[in-house]
Amino acid sequence: MRALAAIPVRSFGEIRPGDSLADRLLSALRKQRLRLRRGDLLVVTHKIVSKSEGRIVPLAKVKPSVAARRRARRYGHDPRVVELALAESRRIVRQRRGVLITETRHGLVCANSGVDLSNVDGGRSAVLLPKNPDRSAAALHRTLRRKLGIPIPVIISDSFGRPWREGLCETAIGVAGLKVFRDFRGRRDPYGYKLRVTREAVADELASMAGLACPKLSRSPVCIIRGFPFAPGRGRARDLLRQKRLDLFR
Amino acid sequence: MRALAAIPVRSFGEIRPGDSLADRLLSALRKQRLRLRRGDLLVVTHKIVSKSEGRIVPLAKVKPSVAARRRARRYGHDPRVVELALAESRRIVRQRRGVLITETRHGLVCANSGVDLSNVDGGRSAVLLPKNPDRSAAALHRTLRRKLGIPIPVIISDSFGRPWREGLCETAIGVAGLKVFRDFRGRRDPYGYKLRVTREAVADELASMAGLACPKLSRSPVCIIRGFPFAPGRGRARDLLRQKRLDLFR
Repeated sequence: MRALAAIPVRSFGEIRPGDSLADRLLSALRKQRLRLRRGDLLVVTHKIVSKSEGRIVPLAKVKPSVAARRRARRYGHDPRVVELALAESRRIVRQRRGVLITETRHGLVCANSGVDLSNVDGGRSAVLLPKNPDRSAAALHRTLRRKLGIPIPVIISDSFGRPWREGLCETAIGVAGLKVFRDFRGRRDPYGYKLRVTREAVADELASMAGLACPKLSRSPVCIIRGFPFAPGRGRARDLLRQKRLDLFR
Repeated sequence: MRALAAIPVRSFGEIRPGDSLADRLLSALRKQRLRLRRGDLLVVTHKIVSKSEGRIVPLAKVKPSVAARRRARRYGHDPRVVELALAESRRIVRQRRGVLITETRHGLVCANSGVDLSNVDGGRSAVLLPKNPDRSAAALHRTLRRKLGIPIPVIISDSFGRPWREGLCETAIGVAGLKVFRDFRGRRDPYGYKLRVTREAVADELASMAGLACPKLSRSPVCIIRGFPFAPGRGRARDLLRQKRLDLFR
């Protein structure tokens, strides 16, 4: 029996702009007497990636536009947060009843372009998504390979809502070092039936699994996933985005 | 360090209408020398639940309607499968380019009302979703508690596609014995910021985690999740369904 396991990494301390995530991670692992092994992968919450990349905006410095102010007034929101959400978006997908669903510059569809006030500084600053989460994941993957000598795939995650269903699930927004899908198309099941559509979004499922082990207030921004037979490869979170012309809900 | 683990249960053999899932599960666990402990929960793929409940329809017995035949012809589908998908639905949410997204009688929004030919008998029969997956989960939960003396929460899962994103993720369609959300609303983060919207759909994340450990062709229809600090309660998968009047994408 080989179990699949999620192991939270703690003791990170505060991450500041310019901090090396790889160094902070390796030091946290040492404190916790954990060691990365070949076959492990990491799920990293985007918040520490954004912080290390300086994607923090003090709200006092944000000048909301007329549109942002109008929207904010209507729904009782902070106009500066609305301003940031609009500035980070390339398209509004839906807005109704105070919910603003945008397509971000990366092509992610999510609430408020991922702009978030939690786990920063008590509401005075907002954290934006990393500029290019696939590139951030690739950088961490590369540095870890250099320092450890083994390729450890990296998934950067954020919690997203979904249409039709209540609640948030942790979702992959940046990926490096593994294929994001497990593709069963063309394979036959034990009864001889050929599968036609089954392509499993394992990168998203891995992010969700990490979310279970490292919940929001746990101060565990990184999760080791051990025992998942990932397919090494040049997967990117970008591959998980359905193209607009193929999407029935945009 | 307390890891969260997913342990696949194998050696189920074929499930037939009328089979007791609890008995089959306990026998599979014995063969595998596994024992359920307090704190474990189970994720069960809906397919074996549907089979045990007789939700199998030989395609030869299906008489497609004119609408089903027309739709099937247009997209090169099997008219009998389309007929079943329409019969299992209460509303069509989208149909375009051969994709049929319906709202099932349970309120689930998914492709083809969850009607599926895989892992049955090589394409001669279709499996429908359980009539009431929350009730199916409750029945298994109850029987296991009677036989083992401990409450083991049960999640019944199916793999669903998502708008905006490619690939399928394993999703909770039936639940018994645990709360489906981990609710952070009203709690303060370590910086004193009060969370307003964070409610994590842990039942869906648990289903996804099981999907990673027990993939489609693995012949492991049940997964033990060990080490997840679930909140016992009367959660139902129904609670995960966003009401139509609150949904921006229906």
